[in-house]
Amino acid sequence: MSEPILDVFRERPDEFVSGEYISEKLQCSRTAVWKQIRKLKAQGYEFEAVPRLGYRLKQAADRIQAEMLQRDLTTRTIGRTIRMLDTVDSTQRVAREWVAAGAEEGSVVLAEGQTAGRGRMERKWHSPQGKGIWMSLILKPTVPIHFLPQLTLLTAVALCRAVKQTIPVECGIKWPNDLLIGGRKTAGILLESSAEDERLRYVIAGIGVSVNLTEEDYPPELREIATSLRIAAGHAVDRTELLQTFFKQFEDLYDLYLQQGFGPIRTLWEASSITIGRKVSVRSASGDITGLALGIDEHGALLLQLDDGNIKPVYSGDVEARA
Amino acid sequence: MSEPILDVFRERPDEFVSGEYISEKLQCSRTAVWKQIRKLKAQGYEFEAVPRLGYRLKQAADRIQAEMLQRDLTTRTIGRTIRMLDTVDSTQRVAREWVAAGAEEGSVVLAEGQTAGRGRMERKWHSPQGKGIWMSLILKPTVPIHFLPQLTLLTAVALCRAVKQTIPVECGIKWPNDLLIGGRKTAGILLESSAEDERLRYVIAGIGVSVNLTEEDYPPELREIATSLRIAAGHAVDRTELLQTFFKQFEDLYDLYLQQGFGPIRTLWEASSITIGRKVSVRSASGDITGLALGIDEHGALLLQLDDGNIKPVYSGDVEARA
Repeated sequence: MSEPILDVFRERPDEFVSGEYISEKLQCSRTAVWKQIRKLKAQGYEFEAVPRLGYRLKQAADRIQAEMLQRDLTTRTIGRTIRMLDTVDSTQRVAREWVAAGAEEGSVVLAEGQTAGRGRMERKWHSPQGKGIWMSLILKPTVPIHFLPQLTLLTAVALCRAVKQTIPVECGIKWPNDLLIGGRKTAGILLESSAEDERLRYVIAGIGVSVNLTEEDYPPELREIATSLRIAAGHAVDRTELLQTFFKQFEDLYDLYLQQGFGPIRTLWEASSITIGRKVSVRSASGDITGLALGIDEHGALLLQLDDGNIKPVYSGDVEARA
Repeated sequence: MSEPILDVFRERPDEFVSGEYISEKLQCSRTAVWKQIRKLKAQGYEFEAVPRLGYRLKQAADRIQAEMLQRDLTTRTIGRTIRMLDTVDSTQRVAREWVAAGAEEGSVVLAEGQTAGRGRMERKWHSPQGKGIWMSLILKPTVPIHFLPQLTLLTAVALCRAVKQTIPVECGIKWPNDLLIGGRKTAGILLESSAEDERLRYVIAGIGVSVNLTEEDYPPELREIATSLRIAAGHAVDRTELLQTFFKQFEDLYDLYLQQGFGPIRTLWEASSITIGRKVSVRSASGDITGLALGIDEHGALLLQLDDGNIKPVYSGDVEARA
């Protein structure tokens, strides 16, 4: 960020700077100063405004620096190549184009903000500037296509473990791949894949983690159902450290999976899940199904025991807990 | 095709027309006439050339007319929307762009020729002008991703049945989806898919059928291992009729599959297969496996009985028959 207005604040750290002073310094109107400050706020900078004193830069925006992230990274491939963007429509779109141009396994697209982030079923994903991890991870696994749901579950396990390693909260996985803290959604995962017959050409794991959003960052309709790591932990969380932890967790589990198959991942998933062992309803296009969630099978299907005792695999839908 | 030179031939059907006459009529050089005839030959027109008499148009190029094809089509969705192209790099590329722009299930891209047709494992597919069916069929099946290999097998069954209904030859399926006549490859199928988690967004079935190629149309390295319907039947085959038959066969099997699942398709596939019941070697990236081909499982894997009696599912590779 090389906005001239930032230099004005940097020259006078911790001081209040009047709007008049800034407008003279930058040779622009007071309205232009106000607009620039509003723009910086949207980028994650925080200001204190006091009448007659002016503005004080409380906190520079926490921006992810790819070089710093990679300096302390202990992985072999995951996160070794990063494309760091400011604002994009969607990191998935960038990743798709990158993979078409030859991006390698482990490459990551990270953005400070997304204007058209999406979750499952074409739902909008709220990705405000500088407050979360909005990223796409490119994979080229040598597994046949019908194992793909296993990778979705693996990604959820890696993310859940990385969160728990970073802040002391109880975070659980809601089938198939939502991360919840205290019953509120904190992160979502969406795997896009492209295949030729049974051979996966590539997989792009779209991952959204609400890290440093405050209550005010959520639109009213999300406040009851969503939360951030910052709200849960009571303090801001270092996104760079969380990313490093996630990349390492992911690589370790991915290596384990490619060597030993789905068994260990299934065990870890079930241990982190808040769905297993509960009576749930799954809402899908083909209707609602209610039953006791027993576990997941090798296709990633949720195994529901119905009232009549039969066990039914469910492949997709939204889970709701029942009383 | 509205080339002026074609009008000259059409005005004098079955007659020899001298190069001199054509060059006067079209006000161009003799060399230009020769070049135009060479171009028409490449498009599938056949000429007889006799010194001093000139050229005679033996046969107008057999071109697929989308309107004519659809006039007698008895399907509900498959082939109801057709994009008919002359020469393209690959019908798959066109179909991918079309599906991104909203193409519906059953839409078909057909080309008279492809300059960059591809088969499995990035292999080049020989698709000369006007001699084959080079097409892409767009599907949007509501089945979870791990059922995709079933669609590959379904497509092979539909194509095999359409060929047998059109010409009286023994045509068999080599696992997973090559069509062979007398041990030589006649058609290939490649399914590209795109998915979001377990949900298929779309499938594009790339289908190449060598219909009216003559021995001379094959490069020397393919003559021993490939053949066409025309060579097998001893006469030219109407591509339009074959397409209509295939679309109908496909739609009937696809309906059956969506209603009753993979069971009936598996039975039909195994009955049409030349792989089942034989001792085969499967060559894959992870090495060769030899065994007796017992059948296919629900994931489309070939079930091989090894010498030690164990049964091993094989997901991909090239099959070779063993003595």
